[in-house]
Amino acid sequence: MTHTTPPAPARVRLDNGGRAPWHPLARQAFLQALDDGWADPRRLHTEGRRAAALLDGAREAAAAVLGARTEEVRFTHSHPTALHAAVLAAAAGRRRAGVDVVVGAVERAAVLHAAQAAATMHGGRRVDVAVDRFGRVDAQAMTDAVASPGVALAALQHANGEVGTLQPVEQVHAAARTAGVPLLVDAGASLGHAAVPPAWDLLAADPADWGAPAGVGVLAARERVRLVPTGPEDPEPWAPGGVSVPAAFAAAVALQAVEADRVAEDARRRALVDRVRGAVTTIPDVEVVGDPDARLPHVATFSFLYVDGEALLTELDRAGIGVGSGSACTASTLEPSHVLAAMGVLTHGNVRIALDRSTTEQDVDRLLAVLPDAVARVREMLGVGGL
Amino acid sequence: MTHTTPPAPARVRLDNGGRAPWHPLARQAFLQALDDGWADPRRLHTEGRRAAALLDGAREAAAAVLGARTEEVRFTHSHPTALHAAVLAAAAGRRRAGVDVVVGAVERAAVLHAAQAAATMHGGRRVDVAVDRFGRVDAQAMTDAVASPGVALAALQHANGEVGTLQPVEQVHAAARTAGVPLLVDAGASLGHAAVPPAWDLLAADPADWGAPAGVGVLAARERVRLVPTGPEDPEPWAPGGVSVPAAFAAAVALQAVEADRVAEDARRRALVDRVRGAVTTIPDVEVVGDPDARLPHVATFSFLYVDGEALLTELDRAGIGVGSGSACTASTLEPSHVLAAMGVLTHGNVRIALDRSTTEQDVDRLLAVLPDAVARVREMLGVGGL
Repeated sequence: MTHTTPPAPARVRLDNGGRAPWHPLARQAFLQALDDGWADPRRLHTEGRRAAALLDGAREAAAAVLGARTEEVRFTHSHPTALHAAVLAAAAGRRRAGVDVVVGAVERAAVLHAAQAAATMHGGRRVDVAVDRFGRVDAQAMTDAVASPGVALAALQHANGEVGTLQPVEQVHAAARTAGVPLLVDAGASLGHAAVPPAWDLLAADPADWGAPAGVGVLAARERVRLVPTGPEDPEPWAPGGVSVPAAFAAAVALQAVEADRVAEDARRRALVDRVRGAVTTIPDVEVVGDPDARLPHVATFSFLYVDGEALLTELDRAGIGVGSGSACTASTLEPSHVLAAMGVLTHGNVRIALDRSTTEQDVDRLLAVLPDAVARVREMLGVGGL
Repeated sequence: MTHTTPPAPARVRLDNGGRAPWHPLARQAFLQALDDGWADPRRLHTEGRRAAALLDGAREAAAAVLGARTEEVRFTHSHPTALHAAVLAAAAGRRRAGVDVVVGAVERAAVLHAAQAAATMHGGRRVDVAVDRFGRVDAQAMTDAVASPGVALAALQHANGEVGTLQPVEQVHAAARTAGVPLLVDAGASLGHAAVPPAWDLLAADPADWGAPAGVGVLAARERVRLVPTGPEDPEPWAPGGVSVPAAFAAAVALQAVEADRVAEDARRRALVDRVRGAVTTIPDVEVVGDPDARLPHVATFSFLYVDGEALLTELDRAGIGVGSGSACTASTLEPSHVLAAMGVLTHGNVRIALDRSTTEQDVDRLLAVLPDAVARVREMLGVGGL
């Protein structure tokens, strides 16, 4: 008697926010740049000049997508280091004009912590602007906060990566301009997925989020913004020691590629996300979170009452499906998400999916087929199955 | 009439310190880890756990080479960021015991600047210990400086990457232990090329120097050393946002590979370096710098009187040979090297070569065949050809 083991179904990877599998063109660009870009771009010989040319080309390509000048774009070692540097250097550059830092309450932890550090350093305070139940910042409250005396800097994300909600960056940028306060826009969850308006004075973005290598970030600052680096003196204060030239080159090539099919991918992924957001409401005691309309096309988030997030994640993982949970954007710990807490929604039993360009309809079907039973099983384990 | 263009001779790359072409096994490991290690190692699903396992394996492998425990080794975003973090966090962790930072005069710029920043932050000063004409730190002077009251931290490189001289790290470490002062050893120019003794409390090393990807550094700290990160609060203070897992994995694999043939490569490259150091003395008005014996096996440095370093580098580059020059380790600018200045040797007309594992005898022959004429041509351009 012979047994044939059926082939294991392929893993469904639905946790593609912040770190996604490499875009095929990123891989190709990386390998190509490895041969020409291994040298230190600061060196003066042929190999160094080739690496410098690749790096300059990458800056130019990223700048074109952002609507910036090449000189305004720098690569950093990661998205959080770009955010740290932007907040600290812009606040230091403005410390004669102000010491407070105004932030949205659901900014990324790196922004909140850097804003706290910068404000403390200069004797000011961090001013958090509340969000509504969808996670959208109160534009009027932010306008008022930015117009207060003593503000050095304001920071507002373009979209919240945890719940997908788009923020009123254009409105807030107009108010900031009027007040003469530079605005940092965190486009870490949106660039490559949504059109980023040129409503920023500083901008940070995350290549690993659009299918490029980890270990590289993007920091753009308009020429008019005065930046004073706060770390030890360094010839490359935004990335001491420099960045990997192949990684930066791959980031730029991948950005061009995802921008080229962004509109089509928006429609395709938005339809899948709408299906998920609709289908999960058939599961009892679920809360679908984030703005239903003004949102990223590829992110869906929901919270289940009487469910432990880690247990649900593990249950789905056993079924072959990888999803994000809790403060997925900031830490491995399943501490209550500061984003969900600020929104006043359930902070536990939380699942976030972020669809990659490679995510198929079948992947989403797999999730929806498995999710109701997984939730029921976790509730049974907690002894709340009958609720 | 037909003309046949002879094939251009392959480039000779003799500037392999700090950034070298990738080791073949680094490339293989990187591509392998790309498939299994693209995910965020902080996530709890299968993909995240696989990435975390690769990263832990990389830490374990690096720790084994260093004679450290796995938990004592962390990856950073670059060698300079490892040095910055080590100096700032160790000084902050010791600020009740002392505020001064003792450094060798020919430490890397990242160490000198971080030591300055740390000392200033805590109201102390940076104490520079002089070196001799070979670039070797005065061990007795460093012992005395470390034993002075109020010292938070001392830093001494294992070897100077610019001139190749090994430093008395074991002697200084013994003195530092006696004084109760932690010693940071910068092994950025030596790990992978020379045996690094376990005479350190903190150690930083540079994967890009041993043929691994750029964009990753190594920071090791003995468990007994108290570290207080000084940047904005972050779950990964040594590398906010994390490092590229494939890059860290490739760094560890490459380190194991270069350690495996280190002794053979030492003999092979030392013989080539000795030939270069001997041959250049036949060129008039040359100074061969660095310790003739206690030195790195793969680095040779010399300075030519009446020669502009940039012009000589360009001349050699035209002849197909890439070499380093001036403060090659720290900046593109050909400012007078602080290392050569501290040694009291010629600071201009300087050439450094660093031999890769792939460097052949023929490569060195090419350099030696071309160098005398290149020097003569540059001297002619400067109008000192007849000197």
